[in-house]
Amino acid sequence: MIKIAIAGYGNLGRGVECSVAQNSDMELFGVFSRRAPETVKTVFDSTKVYSMNDILKYKDDIDVLVICGGSATDLPVQTPELAKNFNVIDSFDTHAKIPEHFANVDASAKESGKIAMISVGWDPGMFSLNRLYGEAVLPDGKDYTFWGKGVSQGHSDAIRRIDGVLDARQYTIPIEKALSAVRSGLNPELSTREKHLRECFVVVEDVADKAKIENEIKTMPNYFADYDTIVHFISMDEMKRDHSGIPHGGFVIRSGKTGANGEHSHLIEYSLKLDSNPEFTASVLVCYARAAYRMNKEGMSGCKTVFDVAPAYLSAKTPDELRAHLL
Amino acid sequence: MIKIAIAGYGNLGRGVECSVAQNSDMELFGVFSRRAPETVKTVFDSTKVYSMNDILKYKDDIDVLVICGGSATDLPVQTPELAKNFNVIDSFDTHAKIPEHFANVDASAKESGKIAMISVGWDPGMFSLNRLYGEAVLPDGKDYTFWGKGVSQGHSDAIRRIDGVLDARQYTIPIEKALSAVRSGLNPELSTREKHLRECFVVVEDVADKAKIENEIKTMPNYFADYDTIVHFISMDEMKRDHSGIPHGGFVIRSGKTGANGEHSHLIEYSLKLDSNPEFTASVLVCYARAAYRMNKEGMSGCKTVFDVAPAYLSAKTPDELRAHLL
Repeated sequence: MIKIAIAGYGNLGRGVECSVAQNSDMELFGVFSRRAPETVKTVFDSTKVYSMNDILKYKDDIDVLVICGGSATDLPVQTPELAKNFNVIDSFDTHAKIPEHFANVDASAKESGKIAMISVGWDPGMFSLNRLYGEAVLPDGKDYTFWGKGVSQGHSDAIRRIDGVLDARQYTIPIEKALSAVRSGLNPELSTREKHLRECFVVVEDVADKAKIENEIKTMPNYFADYDTIVHFISMDEMKRDHSGIPHGGFVIRSGKTGANGEHSHLIEYSLKLDSNPEFTASVLVCYARAAYRMNKEGMSGCKTVFDVAPAYLSAKTPDELRAHLL
Repeated sequence: MIKIAIAGYGNLGRGVECSVAQNSDMELFGVFSRRAPETVKTVFDSTKVYSMNDILKYKDDIDVLVICGGSATDLPVQTPELAKNFNVIDSFDTHAKIPEHFANVDASAKESGKIAMISVGWDPGMFSLNRLYGEAVLPDGKDYTFWGKGVSQGHSDAIRRIDGVLDARQYTIPIEKALSAVRSGLNPELSTREKHLRECFVVVEDVADKAKIENEIKTMPNYFADYDTIVHFISMDEMKRDHSGIPHGGFVIRSGKTGANGEHSHLIEYSLKLDSNPEFTASVLVCYARAAYRMNKEGMSGCKTVFDVAPAYLSAKTPDELRAHLL
């Protein structure tokens, strides 16, 4: 049995707790939290909760530590630090800072002889894999990533920070016309506005100036100004009833040509439709935790990404079973 | 530059010749054929053609040999034999015989210290990868593979063997209702007949008994009896005008559940829409030839499948570039 522990316990940590229970070759050692352990309510009553301060006491009891902190401030510190004593895995998703995070984590993990997998999830993660496979197979081509329909936590938070706003939920929606143009093989150049639209559901104070808030959302730089944005004002009851889920998904499409003169077109499309973004991300983390464990057992160490993991390491099946049944 | 050679020159070999030209880190050493070299007409005038009998003379000039023979009789003999002297790659696609082929090839390649990749293409190949990734990420789920719309060579050949038939083309078509049921997350049990239908275009002799031929097709065991089959009789001119392409494609769909009680559903869908089945298969072979070369350079040997290849080996980009731009 592979012994998994969770460091940091929010939606993602809960997802990892559920995912480990679905994998018969794994068991959950427990959850490490910065909160007082007795205040942490886990999904399963049987799950043990420990203080993050005590984590080093258990370094020989844990095969892989799944770090479930945030990319802004938690992971840049936690992953390099914890890789000094554990095989670790994180879902670091600040694309622009991946090279820096990789370098920091690699130094720690090489020194400790552990495996540290970073940026595992669906984007970065499964979507990255499909960008790589698509480009390798069809070098004369172009790839497109669309996100949604799904809830963007960052954009929802940005709306919540506006004066008079009580709650908000923002959905990123790929524009059907852009998807169709890509699927047609025309390799269109698409602007930000042509690819996605943003739909917002907003609860405001009774006295709030709705027109002013709507304008403030639609003109917000970086978040909304470059998009067509739709704003709906709803009641708190409607918010709770209709927008409590965390769905997401999207598409990676590679369109390319082959032949002596590029006379044949091909389309590779990978899509995800997810009821729960954190639970799916957690499921990806958990199967890469299996890979981290096995790769370290074979003597590998250092920082790895999904690009470095041979697919067979992810499956609970043996190589013989995989060849006989999945190939 | 990675020096690629082609062993066996039909549609697939021509596809490899075109694909190597699209990859700037590769060059084509030449084509080896069992035919007299001067009778082989290649896509590019510059391509050199050699006799298969002379292949061992060039063992130090070739980095990877792409074996483009058929799975029925060529590859079971050629791949283990050529792996004694070359890094090789094939597209062996008789699913039931993969374990046996693997064992034979592995013995040769381990002894020679070479890499031999087998069963590379899109099914087996890219579809197999997606079955594995899907099952690993969503262990509580079910996967579905649909093929088409596309030309099945085996079924076309079976029709051509009927008395009175001059030419035939058979399209395998996934049934939209079955695809919708799978995408709904209902995890349906689907019979052979419910998943695909078979549409046949047939040219017959003037004196042929069409009703008899149609009946013979529709009741043919293994090939057609378990399917709903549509037969169209057309002229040789129509066949040449409308059915000269070799399109194919299909879908791998994983439908699964997460959460404490499986309360959230997820759908992963991978699809291919290919203008030319052999050229796409060739493109997959060529990027795995890059991987074979690199893995052998690093000291690895033996038989490998797509499951054993870390994705980074497939790309012409460096690991740094991949992390910065594709992750």
